[in-house]
Amino acid sequence: MKGTMKVAVMLGIGKMGYEERPIPEPKDDEVLVKLEYVGICGSDMHYYENGRIGDYIVKPPFVLGHEPGGVVVEVGKNVKNLKPGDKVALEPGATCGHCEYCKSGKYNLCPDVRFFATPPIDGVFQEYVAHEADLCFKLPDNMDTMEGALIEPLAVGMHAAKQGGATLGMTALVSGAGCIGLCSMMSLKAFGVSEVYVTDVQNKRLEKAMELGAAGVINSAEKDPVEEVKKLTQGRGVDLVVECSGVEKCANQGIEMLIRGGTLVQVAYGASGYMNLNMSLLCDKEITIKTVFRYRHIYPIAIKAVSEGKVNLKGIVTNVFDFDDIQNAMDRSIHDKANIVKSVVKIG
Amino acid sequence: MKGTMKVAVMLGIGKMGYEERPIPEPKDDEVLVKLEYVGICGSDMHYYENGRIGDYIVKPPFVLGHEPGGVVVEVGKNVKNLKPGDKVALEPGATCGHCEYCKSGKYNLCPDVRFFATPPIDGVFQEYVAHEADLCFKLPDNMDTMEGALIEPLAVGMHAAKQGGATLGMTALVSGAGCIGLCSMMSLKAFGVSEVYVTDVQNKRLEKAMELGAAGVINSAEKDPVEEVKKLTQGRGVDLVVECSGVEKCANQGIEMLIRGGTLVQVAYGASGYMNLNMSLLCDKEITIKTVFRYRHIYPIAIKAVSEGKVNLKGIVTNVFDFDDIQNAMDRSIHDKANIVKSVVKIG
Amino acid sequence: MKGTMKVAVMLGIGKMGYEERPIPEPKDDEVLVKLEYVGICGSDMHYYENGRIGDYIVKPPFVLGHEPGGVVVEVGKNVKNLKPGDKVALEPGATCGHCEYCKSGKYNLCPDVRFFATPPIDGVFQEYVAHEADLCFKLPDNMDTMEGALIEPLAVGMHAAKQGGATLGMTALVSGAGCIGLCSMMSLKAFGVSEVYVTDVQNKRLEKAMELGAAGVINSAEKDPVEEVKKLTQGRGVDLVVECSGVEKCANQGIEMLIRGGTLVQVAYGASGYMNLNMSLLCDKEITIKTVFRYRHIYPIAIKAVSEGKVNLKGIVTNVFDFDDIQNAMDRSIHDKANIVKSVVKIG
Amino acid sequence: MKGTMKVAVMLGIGKMGYEERPIPEPKDDEVLVKLEYVGICGSDMHYYENGRIGDYIVKPPFVLGHEPGGVVVEVGKNVKNLKPGDKVALEPGATCGHCEYCKSGKYNLCPDVRFFATPPIDGVFQEYVAHEADLCFKLPDNMDTMEGALIEPLAVGMHAAKQGGATLGMTALVSGAGCIGLCSMMSLKAFGVSEVYVTDVQNKRLEKAMELGAAGVINSAEKDPVEEVKKLTQGRGVDLVVECSGVEKCANQGIEMLIRGGTLVQVAYGASGYMNLNMSLLCDKEITIKTVFRYRHIYPIAIKAVSEGKVNLKGIVTNVFDFDDIQNAMDRSIHDKANIVKSVVKIG
Repeated sequence: MKGTMKVAVMLGIGKMGYEERPIPEPKDDEVLVKLEYVGICGSDMHYYENGRIGDYIVKPPFVLGHEPGGVVVEVGKNVKNLKPGDKVALEPGATCGHCEYCKSGKYNLCPDVRFFATPPIDGVFQEYVAHEADLCFKLPDNMDTMEGALIEPLAVGMHAAKQGGATLGMTALVSGAGCIGLCSMMSLKAFGVSEVYVTDVQNKRLEKAMELGAAGVINSAEKDPVEEVKKLTQGRGVDLVVECSGVEKCANQGIEMLIRGGTLVQVAYGASGYMNLNMSLLCDKEITIKTVFRYRHIYPIAIKAVSEGKVNLKGIVTNVFDFDDIQNAMDRSIHDKANIVKSVVKIG
Repeated sequence: MKGTMKVAVMLGIGKMGYEERPIPEPKDDEVLVKLEYVGICGSDMHYYENGRIGDYIVKPPFVLGHEPGGVVVEVGKNVKNLKPGDKVALEPGATCGHCEYCKSGKYNLCPDVRFFATPPIDGVFQEYVAHEADLCFKLPDNMDTMEGALIEPLAVGMHAAKQGGATLGMTALVSGAGCIGLCSMMSLKAFGVSEVYVTDVQNKRLEKAMELGAAGVINSAEKDPVEEVKKLTQGRGVDLVVECSGVEKCANQGIEMLIRGGTLVQVAYGASGYMNLNMSLLCDKEITIKTVFRYRHIYPIAIKAVSEGKVNLKGIVTNVFDFDDIQNAMDRSIHDKANIVKSVVKIG
Repeated sequence: MKGTMKVAVMLGIGKMGYEERPIPEPKDDEVLVKLEYVGICGSDMHYYENGRIGDYIVKPPFVLGHEPGGVVVEVGKNVKNLKPGDKVALEPGATCGHCEYCKSGKYNLCPDVRFFATPPIDGVFQEYVAHEADLCFKLPDNMDTMEGALIEPLAVGMHAAKQGGATLGMTALVSGAGCIGLCSMMSLKAFGVSEVYVTDVQNKRLEKAMELGAAGVINSAEKDPVEEVKKLTQGRGVDLVVECSGVEKCANQGIEMLIRGGTLVQVAYGASGYMNLNMSLLCDKEITIKTVFRYRHIYPIAIKAVSEGKVNLKGIVTNVFDFDDIQNAMDRSIHDKANIVKSVVKIG
Repeated sequence: MKGTMKVAVMLGIGKMGYEERPIPEPKDDEVLVKLEYVGICGSDMHYYENGRIGDYIVKPPFVLGHEPGGVVVEVGKNVKNLKPGDKVALEPGATCGHCEYCKSGKYNLCPDVRFFATPPIDGVFQEYVAHEADLCFKLPDNMDTMEGALIEPLAVGMHAAKQGGATLGMTALVSGAGCIGLCSMMSLKAFGVSEVYVTDVQNKRLEKAMELGAAGVINSAEKDPVEEVKKLTQGRGVDLVVECSGVEKCANQGIEMLIRGGTLVQVAYGASGYMNLNMSLLCDKEITIKTVFRYRHIYPIAIKAVSEGKVNLKGIVTNVFDFDDIQNAMDRSIHDKANIVKSVVKIG
């Protein structure tokens, strides 16, 4: 496929623009995907507002966006699993295949990963992308490419559930009802967890949580989540806490509300990067802390779960923006958290 | 067995004394053990110095000591696994057998445990004790009752190794070379770990570590353990850190020296009970934190490991005190940390 | 509670009768339960037809029945978790609490278990039973005592699913669509398994399987299940096979249809007790065989799953017999397998 | 490196010869290895005697041999982990890197593996081989290339130990004291297993087993291994059986001597490929059967274990043959099992 495509670029902190770039050519093991939807992730917003996350520093013009769904339009000569016309979800990280992590199946820990929208690797707020066929997962007929785009955040939630050993009969609490928190909640339920409670300080998000299947919600600005959970569980506490707020207090409340031997899955952290944890209680209750860095081996499972109706993935989307409106999409997603839970950009 | 026995009691903070009490009578499922050695644990010293650990408050006269080894002198009528004359190590915690933790095999988390020398339950700095036969483990011929006493701290180290998934081919670091740190180091090796490095700030303890099988030691007051470990492991880092110092800085150094996907086993914590951890690095490396509360199902394994020569258990003992000298034993163990690594009290 | 109760007894092979016996008195840790429903299990039928299973030999008069549901009518003085009027499911095996299996949480392997209707321990085809309160699990308001009775076979199916590591995203096949097969199928789905296929040779049973949620069924008398599964899974095969038929050929077909590294869970075996397995294929595919002996720690999970509507437990019942009609209940359950999938006896 | 090399080829059943072939040129990711030792494996002998194993059929001239150790003489331009002069052990299977097995870390199950000496892929009874650098593992200074060659069978034994969950405190039995049985026994000990008992019918092999660290041996032609094991373990049985004989009776004896909940690791199978197993006992004891197909992620661990002296790898070798003597090497290895436990061919 010849010609150029429109690419949205971050020109500087708080400033988006557009460029024309050549449509990439797929290599032998790649496919060319016409993108239809790309979600806006918290990390996109963070780069846009601050120009960096830790040691990853944006050099403009930089392309944000790593939650893509689209349609295959061309396939490299070695590609067998896909054909033009297939709807796909794109896993955004290409790994080396040779390090001890890749070889042992923990490819998300590959130190040489090239991940969309993690500097210096460009993301996919653009019309086309050439990507490894192995990382493009075909969607079944009953799913559309907006759901395809949202498989990425769902994969984080599912990996969190898996790291926590979520299974039938457990009870759990998710702290933070943003996109990842909601995906975690729905993932826990898909893994068989009976009751999932959700905390946040935004009522809009808590309403979303109830709408999408939470067993109960707690506005932690108004009530003490530890006491509430004790009441809801007849004093026992929960087996599992998935901490998606990045707030130290929430992590410590999680430690308090867990049963002995329970597991805290830490998905997020705040600006300082540090958390002052109640280690004496962690030890006395022999709690395990698992952490989450992206995901591995989750896309096929996540797609199946959505296709089977176990996860109402589109339910998390509150706002769809046009590709031409991307500056507004970024600005509003950042500044209107009381109303926006999850934004998606419709490309083309 | 009729008569009275000598019991060492804590009369107040920093003050030991003796009482005569009746020799206890074993119930049907119990055995009466004549104690020969009881180790002095960090928690004994802590109660002695401060009168409390968290919510556990000493009411004098209180009996310290929970690391007992002795000889069976009488058995209850239901007891089949032991007979008078058997040397035994005594597991100090009696559990309810009915809660969800006991039933699922995690009996160390039983909320109704009665554990020697944890107020209000008396310990065993005394001549005799009646104890559940299920909790008295027979020592083989090639072990003595001083080793029997030391099975208790070894069990903590072995549980730490087990919590960390220690196995053949791993490399590990233990921070803190006190009794529990040394027991952890020897346990890791018994589980097959190849190289175990040890850090501390006391050279005496580091010498002990080398003597007992460490692959290398680092005085962390003099050198940066993270850099040293990177050098020792050709930049890779270690698979496992067992943190026995309770020092926040050591935990964070542990996080830095671990490989991605590695495990930090937290065994100890400091006076504040809190630790300000590098959560961004924990998450980026997807590290797991396991914690240790006592141990479960470890006594038979620990006894076997000592009996087979995999663990040089008596090697950790630097000082043996007479029962009559218990005040001195407590005082010196607390105040002469440069010379004393582990004290044991010889009863009778 | 004073007085006598009606007890159905097996008087000899193929011969049932009734006796009057004193209503038992609950001990301090027991409750007295008025039984309302007791399921008829395959082992009941086997004892009834053959007088023995392996080394377990019936000495008449013997009471069959180990799938009981009822209502608490009296509680021992130490009982706190139950009160008169509570509906309960009764776990039929009382274990010693002291052996290495009990202590490590694998209580189903306790060699000293006393299990209802396993000679010489009587079962519960009777009006009342006194049973350990720890083994009586309260049913929520939205469940009745017929479901309580059926928790027992469901527990077998759930343990099979757990032994197989059943989780979200897997595909599975259950061979044999009797009570245990159907319970296994529903359990797999409750653990998150996507598609569960079911084989049998009785169409009635396959219809039940479809009705209760199978993704597809195969009459293995008519079609080759291996080929069918390959078609249904685009050549990949299934992750998990739960073999409930006890037929050697089914086990070997399971081995053929599994993916490499897959798991065969063997729940049943035939009259010879032996199975000639395709070991070269087992090894080449590195398949794991897990087996199932009753269950452990499943009752609370199973009750929750039914209460939440994840398992349509009453859906497996095709026939309810009156207590007065027990000879007929036994005879028909054995001889009318084309029409009867699962029978339950209504007591009182 | 230019020129030709000597290659030993199987010309037909029971017939070896030699050919001159060009020295291969390493690709960018490969190294050229001058081979020094290649072990003779049971599968080499089987192909030599029968011309096939299952569906793998030898088409002469075919090169046998898949246990190679040698020295790097040339490296491809992308190779960083090795340099000329490095002694290496060569893992014989090159996998696709893209299938679900490779991606999840179970690369030994890759259906597209190219494995030395598995038709139609030639083996390495030859002077040089070009092989993926990722599959060539550098030996430490204290190991030689004969040990390098023997890492291959040791890897099978270590994978068997790992599949069985071998760890500190267990007891185990290995049936069959050939090369793989002895490697399994030493592996179990390296993983911390306390006592490993070994059975065979050849006294020479049992002597070897004792020499290399078995806790005891049983000639199963003379004594009943089940009874002996019960005696040796005070009636308890063993936690783990690693079955390396491929004899049905040994597998069933293994099932009898295991504790409840124990694990049988099946490494071998006999000519029929089938085994008639005691399924009723397997189920009643809830035993797990694990199987072994080659190994994964084991080479680094195995090399470390040998280097640290945990495994006396050269101790299994009873015969070293010259490369010029390969026909004799094959013939004697097959026909003199009473004296030969393990043969190695010294190349050049």
